[in-house]
Amino acid sequence: MKLIALILLSLPIIAQSNKDVSDIDSVLHTQEKRWNEGKIEEFMEYYAKTEDLKFIGKSGVTQGWASTLKRYQTSYPNRETMGTLSFDIQEVDVTAGQTAWVLGRWNLKRPSLGDVGGYFTLLLKKIDGRWLVVRDHTS
Amino acid sequence: MKLIALILLSLPIIAQSNKDVSDIDSVLHTQEKRWNEGKIEEFMEYYAKTEDLKFIGKSGVTQGWASTLKRYQTSYPNRETMGTLSFDIQEVDVTAGQTAWVLGRWNLKRPSLGDVGGYFTLLLKKIDGRWLVVRDHTS
Repeated sequence: MKLIALILLSLPIIAQSNKDVSDIDSVLHTQEKRWNEGKIEEFMEYYAKTEDLKFIGKSGVTQGWASTLKRYQTSYPNRETMGTLSFDIQEVDVTAGQTAWVLGRWNLKRPSLGDVGGYFTLLLKKIDGRWLVVRDHTS
Repeated sequence: MKLIALILLSLPIIAQSNKDVSDIDSVLHTQEKRWNEGKIEEFMEYYAKTEDLKFIGKSGVTQGWASTLKRYQTSYPNRETMGTLSFDIQEVDVTAGQTAWVLGRWNLKRPSLGDVGGYFTLLLKKIDGRWLVVRDHTS
């Protein structure tokens, strides 16, 4: 009986964790889709809309949602430079249902310009019930 | 009275979080010190000694403690290449006293070879009471 109670008690935790992982998966797949439709602002809706947002890239740290959007728009001024994005999510680590760390590969297929890609690690937070990126380290 | 009880109840959480941040600070400063003594294996003692450890760098993902040590030894074969390391910790984010995300800058002063540096983001876990690095993304 004790064993059954223990299993039942732990079920909601496991279920929540799996739901968090699939929610985060869905965030990243929606981002892929929006990028591939050429919609950078809509892609950016999954970044926390705050001055506290940080994007760590080759050229250092970009701080704030608006600056991160501008950085994307400057680096990818048109559909040709944006190419076709695909994420390969390798790992999602959720802590206490409120913070998640993600490791993935990114790739941009760009027939005329040449493909580019690398790794990204994200820190996401559950803010008002939504998983949002608060830190993005892309290299 | 309710307010006082609330304040008293929340104190241990704040104290623990501050202690976690100072413990992590101390981990990174000990690493600096050991690096600057030329002790790469001792520097590596703050990485989780497991096959699950991941180091994400310019050349991709290195998996496992032993491979990460080897990578450091190959990239920094002597004191001259190791130079003088300094970390500038910009942010420590602790979740539920068990997981922490760290953003910092690294710099190697190397008078004859030229300085190198960049950013790192870490995922640390509290394992058997010790904060250890389980993921390191250095760029």
